[in-house]
Amino acid sequence: MAEKSYDVVGIGNAIVDIIARCDEGFLSKRDLAKGFMRLIDAAEANRLYEAMGPAVERSGGSVANSIAGLASFGGKCGFIGRVAADQFGGIFRHDIRSLGVDYDTLPATDGAPTARCLILVTPDGERTMNTFLGASVDFTADDLDANLLEGAKIVYLEGYLFDAEAARRAFAKAAALAHGAGRKIALTLSDSFVVERHRGGLQGFIETQVDLLFANEAELLALYETADFDEACEQLLRHCELAAVTRSEKGSVVLTKGEMLHVPAETVEKVVDTTGAGDQYAAGFCFGLSQGRSLEVCGRLGSLAAAEVIAHYGPRPQVSLKELAAKAGL
Amino acid sequence: MAEKSYDVVGIGNAIVDIIARCDEGFLSKRDLAKGFMRLIDAAEANRLYEAMGPAVERSGGSVANSIAGLASFGGKCGFIGRVAADQFGGIFRHDIRSLGVDYDTLPATDGAPTARCLILVTPDGERTMNTFLGASVDFTADDLDANLLEGAKIVYLEGYLFDAEAARRAFAKAAALAHGAGRKIALTLSDSFVVERHRGGLQGFIETQVDLLFANEAELLALYETADFDEACEQLLRHCELAAVTRSEKGSVVLTKGEMLHVPAETVEKVVDTTGAGDQYAAGFCFGLSQGRSLEVCGRLGSLAAAEVIAHYGPRPQVSLKELAAKAGL
Repeated sequence: MAEKSYDVVGIGNAIVDIIARCDEGFLSKRDLAKGFMRLIDAAEANRLYEAMGPAVERSGGSVANSIAGLASFGGKCGFIGRVAADQFGGIFRHDIRSLGVDYDTLPATDGAPTARCLILVTPDGERTMNTFLGASVDFTADDLDANLLEGAKIVYLEGYLFDAEAARRAFAKAAALAHGAGRKIALTLSDSFVVERHRGGLQGFIETQVDLLFANEAELLALYETADFDEACEQLLRHCELAAVTRSEKGSVVLTKGEMLHVPAETVEKVVDTTGAGDQYAAGFCFGLSQGRSLEVCGRLGSLAAAEVIAHYGPRPQVSLKELAAKAGL
Repeated sequence: MAEKSYDVVGIGNAIVDIIARCDEGFLSKRDLAKGFMRLIDAAEANRLYEAMGPAVERSGGSVANSIAGLASFGGKCGFIGRVAADQFGGIFRHDIRSLGVDYDTLPATDGAPTARCLILVTPDGERTMNTFLGASVDFTADDLDANLLEGAKIVYLEGYLFDAEAARRAFAKAAALAHGAGRKIALTLSDSFVVERHRGGLQGFIETQVDLLFANEAELLALYETADFDEACEQLLRHCELAAVTRSEKGSVVLTKGEMLHVPAETVEKVVDTTGAGDQYAAGFCFGLSQGRSLEVCGRLGSLAAAEVIAHYGPRPQVSLKELAAKAGL
C-alpha cells in the first residue's frame, strides 16, 4: 500500500537545457535537422557548445517539464530520473523540488555528469535539440520507488528513455508495479527519430502496457510507417485505449474506442520558442484526466498549457496554469 | 608594448546569476533590502537557494555585463576575473568568449566554487541581489595580464571587488600598468553598501587613479555622506575629471570640468527586470568614449543600452546594440 497519493508520477531524463539563439545558417552548416532531437556524445557536446552563442541554463527534460506543468495546474506530483552530483544536477533538483514535486532519485557520484540538452532556437521559434544523456543513462530499475509508483493515479513515461537499455527494463518494472496497484501507464513517443530507432519495442510496449499515449503527428506516422494520418489513427486505436495526438497549430486529436475528438489549438500572438509545447500539452491533458474531467476538457487544458509555453523562452510555464485555466473557464 | 589593442578591458567579479521571481513578502520576511546587493557566505547561499522558486542561470557580474554590452556595440574587449574549474565557471567562460571577448584568467582548481548571485526579481521589476563571491575572491594581482591592460584604451574596474583585499591591491597594480601605458582608468562604484564599507579607500583611489567614474545617485550621495545631489556633484568634480551619474527614469548627468550635462532616459514600455541597467549604461558610455564620440552621444548610447536591458529578464543585451544604435541615428 502506497504511503502517499499522487496525481501523476513521471519517469524521464533529468536534463539541464542550455538554450541559445542561432540563425538558420548555423543549423544548415552542421546538417542539423530543424525541430528534431539528436543524441550526441560528450566530445560533440563540447564542440557544439564552443560554437554556440551566449546561452541561458534552466531545468528541462520532457517528462520533467510536464511534471512542472502539472504542478503549476495544482497537481500533486513525483518525479524519478537520474542526475550526477554536480552543479547542473543541483539546478535540476532545486527547480523541480521548488515546485512542490517529490524528487528523491539519488544522484550518481561517479560516471558521467548531469545530462544536458543544447537547444538552438531559430528566429521562427523552432527548437533543435542536441542531447548528451550523461548521468540519465545510469538510470536503472533500482532507481524506481515503489511507493511513488503505486501511489500515482497516472505513471507517465518518457519515450526518450527507450534509448537506454537499462531504462527500458526499468519501464517494464514500473508498468508492472503501477498496473499491479491498479494505476494507469501513460507514455510519450518523444521524437520521431526515437520511434525509428525503437519501433518494434515501442509497438510491443504500447500494445501490452500503455493506457494513454501522447504523440505528435510525425511520431505517430513513424510508429506505423505510413504517410496517412487516418490510417495511423486506426492502427493506434486497435492497440491503445486512449491517445492524444498533437498537430501544432491544427490542435490535437483525442482517440478513444473508435471515436476521434478534435480539439482546437489556442491562439498565440507570437510564437517565441516551441520548446516544451508537447510537454505542456501532456501536462494539461494528464491534469484533467487525474481530476476526472471530460476528454474534451483534458484536450483544451493541454492546448491552453501549450499556448502559454510557446509564447516565451523556456520549456516550463512562467505563470500559474491553475489561474490561467480558471480565467479560461476550465 | 602591448601585442593587441582593445577598446575596453574590464576587471570584475566572474559570476553566474541565478534568477528567480519572488513576491514582496519573500523579501520582507527575510529583511532583504530591495534593490541592493548584499554579500552572503556559502551556507546562506544554500539556505536562500533552497527557499527560492525555480530559477534560470546565466552569466552575470557587473563589469562582465558591461563588457558583453560593449561587444554587442562592436567594441573590441577583454575581461579579467576568476572562476573555479566547475560547471558554473564553464558557463561564464563560454558566454563571454562566445561574444568575441578575450578571456584567459586561469580557473581556480581548488578552494571555493565559482561565484554566484542569487537575484530575486519582484513584480515591479526591481532586483535584489545576494552574492556569494566564491572563487572571485581568489583574484590577485598575479591574475593581471599586462598585455591586455596596456593594450586597452580604457581599463574598467568593478567597485564590488573592493570587498576583497587582494583584489584592491590588484586594482592599484592595474592602474599603474594602464597609466604607465597612457591608458584611462574607469571605475564603477557598484553599490551604496560597498561605498559605505570602503568610503575612505574609494575616495583615495578616485582622487589618485580614476579618470572616469560611474555611479548612481545613491552611491554618489553615500560617497560624500550628503543628501544634497548638487553638493555631491561639486565634490566629485574636484576629484575626478569625468563622471557619469545615473538617476533611473530621470536619465543621467555627465560631469566634466565644472560642466553638468543632462542626458534624458530612453522611454521603456514596460520595465521587466532592472538587473544590468547601470552596467549597460556604462557599456554605452565607454563605447562612445572609445570611439571618440561627444559626451552627449556617450550618454545617449548609455541610455539606449540601459533601456534595452530593463525591458527583458537578464543583465545582458538580447539584440545587437550596434544595430539599435544605428537605428537611433547614433
